[in-house]
Amino acid sequence: MATPTGRIVRTLSERGSLSAVQLARLTGLAKSTVSTALAELKRTEMVVETGTEQTSGAGRPATTLTLNPKAGTCIGVLIGQSELQVIVADVSHSVLWDKSVYLEPGYSEQTAAELVRELITEAYADQWQTPAGLLGVGIAVGAPVNPVNGQILRGGLPNLTGTDIRALLGQLFDVPIFADNESNCSAIAEMTWGAAQGFEDFIVYTLDLGVGGAIVSGGKVLRGIAGGAGEFGHVVIDPAGPVCRCGNRGCLEVYASFSGPLAEAQRHFGRKLRITDVVRMALAGDETCRRLIAQAGEAGGRGLGLIGSVFNPPLVVVSGRLATAGELLMTPLAESFERYSLVKREDVPENARTILRRSTFIDNGACMGAVGLVLRHHGRPLN
Amino acid sequence: MATPTGRIVRTLSERGSLSAVQLARLTGLAKSTVSTALAELKRTEMVVETGTEQTSGAGRPATTLTLNPKAGTCIGVLIGQSELQVIVADVSHSVLWDKSVYLEPGYSEQTAAELVRELITEAYADQWQTPAGLLGVGIAVGAPVNPVNGQILRGGLPNLTGTDIRALLGQLFDVPIFADNESNCSAIAEMTWGAAQGFEDFIVYTLDLGVGGAIVSGGKVLRGIAGGAGEFGHVVIDPAGPVCRCGNRGCLEVYASFSGPLAEAQRHFGRKLRITDVVRMALAGDETCRRLIAQAGEAGGRGLGLIGSVFNPPLVVVSGRLATAGELLMTPLAESFERYSLVKREDVPENARTILRRSTFIDNGACMGAVGLVLRHHGRPLN
Repeated sequence: MATPTGRIVRTLSERGSLSAVQLARLTGLAKSTVSTALAELKRTEMVVETGTEQTSGAGRPATTLTLNPKAGTCIGVLIGQSELQVIVADVSHSVLWDKSVYLEPGYSEQTAAELVRELITEAYADQWQTPAGLLGVGIAVGAPVNPVNGQILRGGLPNLTGTDIRALLGQLFDVPIFADNESNCSAIAEMTWGAAQGFEDFIVYTLDLGVGGAIVSGGKVLRGIAGGAGEFGHVVIDPAGPVCRCGNRGCLEVYASFSGPLAEAQRHFGRKLRITDVVRMALAGDETCRRLIAQAGEAGGRGLGLIGSVFNPPLVVVSGRLATAGELLMTPLAESFERYSLVKREDVPENARTILRRSTFIDNGACMGAVGLVLRHHGRPLN
Repeated sequence: MATPTGRIVRTLSERGSLSAVQLARLTGLAKSTVSTALAELKRTEMVVETGTEQTSGAGRPATTLTLNPKAGTCIGVLIGQSELQVIVADVSHSVLWDKSVYLEPGYSEQTAAELVRELITEAYADQWQTPAGLLGVGIAVGAPVNPVNGQILRGGLPNLTGTDIRALLGQLFDVPIFADNESNCSAIAEMTWGAAQGFEDFIVYTLDLGVGGAIVSGGKVLRGIAGGAGEFGHVVIDPAGPVCRCGNRGCLEVYASFSGPLAEAQRHFGRKLRITDVVRMALAGDETCRRLIAQAGEAGGRGLGLIGSVFNPPLVVVSGRLATAGELLMTPLAESFERYSLVKREDVPENARTILRRSTFIDNGACMGAVGLVLRHHGRPLN
């Protein structure tokens, strides 16, 4: 949408609340054009004032603006390996409703559709719905999604490989529906509201029960010709290694995901544990859990070195539940990354070094990113 | 440069000869604006008509335009592991002069500067120089170049690591000077005049005595924060593997470059050989040479699978002297690429499959790309 009002709506969709000055800078419109358009948008109640924000200079505080929360809502859905999540957010980026259900991996597409339908029915029953209704649905999928035909590709969800996820959930909705893999959605969340704000080029590197990632170049998430870009977990490290859930052998994920260490921890402690339990015990000082996380960091850093030699990125956002271990993970990860990278820190000036940073979002980054998928398309022709 | 004439000059710089209709499409300017600007550019002799080209429709042939060759020349320099090359081209992209000298790897920066100076003196003596003079110099370097400080990074040229190549050769010239690694320059050549014409997103994968590459996203060559993007040859495959010339262990280049197979061929035939000799014998039917090339294709495909799982690119341009072996290389390379990729051909429709294609340029791609570096900056403020 090329009109000034369209550009302002899209920018507020993507960024939440902004001042008129920030809007002028981000849209490239003249301040007078922004003023005229904002007057029109306020008159029609599309945009509302949310408060004031002290600017960096000494001047008076600027009024911040946001899309009218009553202007509509978005649904974000996560289709994970063992989790389904639904978030409802308004166009001002406030989360109105958020709930997850957990299930055994290998569930059928009918089960997925049924559970998502139940979650959304429950959300409706909780009366989050605004008069202006639903703008769109974004789906974050725990596997690559082919942008050409919407099908889930071989990867993290063998049970749903080949499913057209937009068609499956599209039966439930009469609004635009978008789907991308969870790491790409996390990248959108980090870029919009999180650790990558202000970066046009960065990598997301996810360490959890799987290993994933996303590539952002020039502010755009790269999807690849068939949706397979950023699948760092499925880079083949050892052609003779163990079989991976994707069907190949010796993928990075086999070595650097926390599935193996978690099983070790469960054997050691003699009870069922989640990643978050291991992280909590490690932070409380347990040596075994610290060792397991440090080793995961070492293995993860080797994979990240590989990604570093391919991209030499300005920023890597480390996400996934392992990232909640903080320095217990990040220190060995950074050491190992340095060892396996081509460009060594000491060889380049400070401003030419890759920054490693923990993600802002842990639990609901992908699902918030799915909301972001809708907001990024809001006020824009569908592709 | 935002004026219509500036945009037209830049587009012709990058693309060679174009019709007025193509210029309007590529610059986004109105046809009437293009007409007015072209009239001015022809009057000042910046642009000349080169001929006519049958358009795809049934209409009359369109006049093609190009920058006036007399408007200036560019020098492209290649600083390779064992080769120095100088090309002189005019702004219409015609090569006026081209010469290489070969030397032993490990030469000093003084030797490099001296030999480049001699080549350029010889080119001047051959009277290629036009009255309008030299517009700029592009340097293609056989190692990554830090875009922040111009220094050559650890990688393909240990003898020149740390050298500020623009400062070194800048002593010889009083014009703008640009430097990037040879694979990034090759990508510019392939995008401008070669196998990647019409693609905005592609990968260059170079198989020669070293292994290299380049990443093009949205029509731009990604350089990385320190110039290390696209260094596919220095992805660590085996942390316990042999030491690589970059200083790390077990890099892809150790396994997939043709250095090892070339040494084997030399032992087998009992004489000094170049890659091109092995390729020639293989094409003539020699079984040993065919086997060596097929095995290099297999090893190269493994590395390419890795790149494929990271990018899932629409196009991979396979370059380097090994690519001259044609199907003898490409068939095993494609099979191995398929085996180690996450996205399998059979899983996705035809239009979502990665295309593997041989490069157009073999011998002087990097050096032509260095000319392209200058042409892409011609009429644009320096960065």
